[in-house]
Amino acid sequence: MAMQRSTHFDESGQAQMVDVTAKSITARTATATAVVSMNAQAAQSIRQGDSRKGDVLAVARLAAITGTKWTSTLIPLCHAIPIEGVEVGFQWLDEPAAPSTEGTTPTSLLRCTATVKTTYKTGVEMEAMTAASVAALTIYDMLKSVDRSMEIRQTRLEHKDGGKSGLFQR
Amino acid sequence: MAMQRSTHFDESGQAQMVDVTAKSITARTATATAVVSMNAQAAQSIRQGDSRKGDVLAVARLAAITGTKWTSTLIPLCHAIPIEGVEVGFQWLDEPAAPSTEGTTPTSLLRCTATVKTTYKTGVEMEAMTAASVAALTIYDMLKSVDRSMEIRQTRLEHKDGGKSGLFQR
Amino acid sequence: MAMQRSTHFDESGQAQMVDVTAKSITARTATATAVVSMNAQAAQSIRQGDSRKGDVLAVARLAAITGTKWTSTLIPLCHAIPIEGVEVGFQWLDEPAAPSTEGTTPTSLLRCTATVKTTYKTGVEMEAMTAASVAALTIYDMLKSVDRSMEIRQTRLEHKDGGKSGLFQR
Amino acid sequence: MAMQRSTHFDESGQAQMVDVTAKSITARTATATAVVSMNAQAAQSIRQGDSRKGDVLAVARLAAITGTKWTSTLIPLCHAIPIEGVEVGFQWLDEPAAPSTEGTTPTSLLRCTATVKTTYKTGVEMEAMTAASVAALTIYDMLKSVDRSMEIRQTRLEHKDGGKSGLFQR
Amino acid sequence: MAMQRSTHFDESGQAQMVDVTAKSITARTATATAVVSMNAQAAQSIRQGDSRKGDVLAVARLAAITGTKWTSTLIPLCHAIPIEGVEVGFQWLDEPAAPSTEGTTPTSLLRCTATVKTTYKTGVEMEAMTAASVAALTIYDMLKSVDRSMEIRQTRLEHKDGGKSGLFQR
Amino acid sequence: MAMQRSTHFDESGQAQMVDVTAKSITARTATATAVVSMNAQAAQSIRQGDSRKGDVLAVARLAAITGTKWTSTLIPLCHAIPIEGVEVGFQWLDEPAAPSTEGTTPTSLLRCTATVKTTYKTGVEMEAMTAASVAALTIYDMLKSVDRSMEIRQTRLEHKDGGKSGLFQR
Repeated sequence: MAMQRSTHFDESGQAQMVDVTAKSITARTATATAVVSMNAQAAQSIRQGDSRKGDVLAVARLAAITGTKWTSTLIPLCHAIPIEGVEVGFQWLDEPAAPSTEGTTPTSLLRCTATVKTTYKTGVEMEAMTAASVAALTIYDMLKSVDRSMEIRQTRLEHKDGGKSGLFQR
Repeated sequence: MAMQRSTHFDESGQAQMVDVTAKSITARTATATAVVSMNAQAAQSIRQGDSRKGDVLAVARLAAITGTKWTSTLIPLCHAIPIEGVEVGFQWLDEPAAPSTEGTTPTSLLRCTATVKTTYKTGVEMEAMTAASVAALTIYDMLKSVDRSMEIRQTRLEHKDGGKSGLFQR
Repeated sequence: MAMQRSTHFDESGQAQMVDVTAKSITARTATATAVVSMNAQAAQSIRQGDSRKGDVLAVARLAAITGTKWTSTLIPLCHAIPIEGVEVGFQWLDEPAAPSTEGTTPTSLLRCTATVKTTYKTGVEMEAMTAASVAALTIYDMLKSVDRSMEIRQTRLEHKDGGKSGLFQR
Repeated sequence: MAMQRSTHFDESGQAQMVDVTAKSITARTATATAVVSMNAQAAQSIRQGDSRKGDVLAVARLAAITGTKWTSTLIPLCHAIPIEGVEVGFQWLDEPAAPSTEGTTPTSLLRCTATVKTTYKTGVEMEAMTAASVAALTIYDMLKSVDRSMEIRQTRLEHKDGGKSGLFQR
Repeated sequence: MAMQRSTHFDESGQAQMVDVTAKSITARTATATAVVSMNAQAAQSIRQGDSRKGDVLAVARLAAITGTKWTSTLIPLCHAIPIEGVEVGFQWLDEPAAPSTEGTTPTSLLRCTATVKTTYKTGVEMEAMTAASVAALTIYDMLKSVDRSMEIRQTRLEHKDGGKSGLFQR
Repeated sequence: MAMQRSTHFDESGQAQMVDVTAKSITARTATATAVVSMNAQAAQSIRQGDSRKGDVLAVARLAAITGTKWTSTLIPLCHAIPIEGVEVGFQWLDEPAAPSTEGTTPTSLLRCTATVKTTYKTGVEMEAMTAASVAALTIYDMLKSVDRSMEIRQTRLEHKDGGKSGLFQR
């Protein structure tokens, strides 16, 4: 099998920010999700945000949107990309997307979905992945006093389009 | 069951940065992990970093260390904490820590572990969680051209000590 | 009258970050306010946030809290201060705190109040002033498509205590 | 009256970064002002900057210019915009632009004016507003040891042109 | 001799961010170098990085790449530029590029070279100069416990092309 | 000769942020300098700053002061340190501190000196080195349109005291 090299290293194996000078400027979209597992008490605390006892998801949504702006700060070899739109949503999963890894009682699962758009020479997968991660981390932060065992599961790219590598759809 | 409120909201449900003025300054430690699943080609690409074909883990380790410094930027209600030490390690898991969620063929699993220390009024759980997440996101970034289906699984707190809430050990 | 010199300049008039090495670490609090004037339509849009048509004040509150963390980035000679607590509130003023400066019809006035706490060698007036300003700027940003003529009026320190200069109360 | 919705919320009232993908790239300019009121001693301290006893306005000007670069960090739903030019000026107002709100003796009024330019899909009103605010906050910071009662008054947009919404002139 | 004015000041001598609105978008490249002098022990410590006793140059390379993203934060009147590619290399100089300034025994000299690319209205000289400086500062940081007398010498632009001012080659 | 290991790597050669938990909090000072060489025209342009044709050194001084706050962002393994005071000065050198490296005609030499203070567990050498570097880079930026061949020479630590390693004086 011919070895495929990550484009983030040059021929001698040194890290570089990939030269995108010659790439085409095209419209690009990426969507990523992160799933947070939590106990019943934490889930109840979030749901009550609707009744204004503290809106965890409003905070997490804002954190995710602003998180997209920090992607190139966090990920060393990322280009800074002009982000043209961000949407963040949340959905309770009736059935676990990922089985509990320790045989414990079932937990509530909340999925964070972030969609990011740009018109640039390189894509926004990392911005979407970072947004979903930051949403999940913020939820953990706000509820860790209620359930310190919360886990972030299955952070992953769901969709991307635009650019030379074309469509990716899970 | 009496409802437990997240401390990040005041009595009327408004977000706040929790007042820690009166808390004691104590030594605190937190450890978090994130597990990345990837296909064989991506795993091979990382392992070859040892032979200087591009050291993915060295980049991810640095990203995780510097990521701890951005925690209070990413997480809206986090205090900025004087971080006094960070260690980041990686370990290949022979057996999957999390079963594949879609019945696909087994994948390689790499665990990122971040330990953060401070001497302050509040703990570094979020710094450790952020470091582990950034390590995993950086690995995804560097290898997404090889395997765009990589997933980050099971980001979670493993250990914390110090402070009023005391020891947490999974 | 003997001329009083700003402490941010040395004897030859050069800017400096004031040396606070020898100052005492004490608990300090500061409160600042900013008043935003707007037309009836913009005011209605904010009030409807309570009924979940878009919660402008939740966004402004978070922006103000995170804004405190950027104070020493924005204000060149400010020290970076360990912020230990932030509260942000909003209040509609029945009677204008500041008369309209152009003889136009009366507008609605919304007051943003930010209180910041630290235990450090220097105070948090600038953090409170910045938080109130950022709250007001965020409100302007979110409603400028409704009323581009909105104004921020009367951003000022209301209260400070702690430190050598002692209590300030308007 | 049909309710006008802020574009920063989607149809269900959730915050978003507005999608500007389809907007035209055009030259855009925005000018904003902030007025600072201060006592005679503080005003004298600034004026003496000309004679090199400490140049408050040079510091405030630089803070305002660099402040434009932090706009999308401070204002959660702002796009990061490629800023192509910034000018900052100061003018003493012989007659108060805003009457004192508390019946106190007349104060000196200094107006900070910031003009920002871009060629992009969305405008630079917030960059101009932020620059004017940061100039005023920096002046407050440098002279608060001389006059802690200084106020920032009447931060507002004076002019914008370019883009779909066209010309705004006060 | 007619006096040439820096473009960073307007006609009255006030600092400004130069208006580049009307400039052409062209491909631009810049290369800068910094030379670090160190004693034999520090040099040995770096060379052993190849044998995985701690890879100083891998850390310095990453710091230089990410340093390019901070240029407009560090340099007050710099425009934020969309960086499209960064390469960083290191070379041991057999013969000193700069003679020791104090008549001490010869030291080892290591040259850091950074090349930055953009397609924009203004050039990336400052990004290349900043990258080379940050590489050198990082090397100093990592080895100052071994040789606190290390010096950074001869940071300078080696090459630039693109834009109205055309080619510069040392 | 027994090999001395940089403290920024652990025993297996992996980068880490050094654990300073157990170190004593003491007053610490560091002073660093950077020397900029330039042609006569550039030097004249700076000197005329005194007569208000554009004050290059005022901009460079502010950039250096704010640069100290970015040190831990730029240098990956640096701790974020509470900076308690910064002074930045400039001095023309009548005689070159560093001989021209290319046999060209003598140039003017300007020395930037930065002194930084803290009371913390680790020192501020890197903050002083970064401040001196940023001052020099800013001077280059502002005058590169006048003399693109300017060089930064001899950035180095001049003095440090406080902490376990004690006094360093060149």
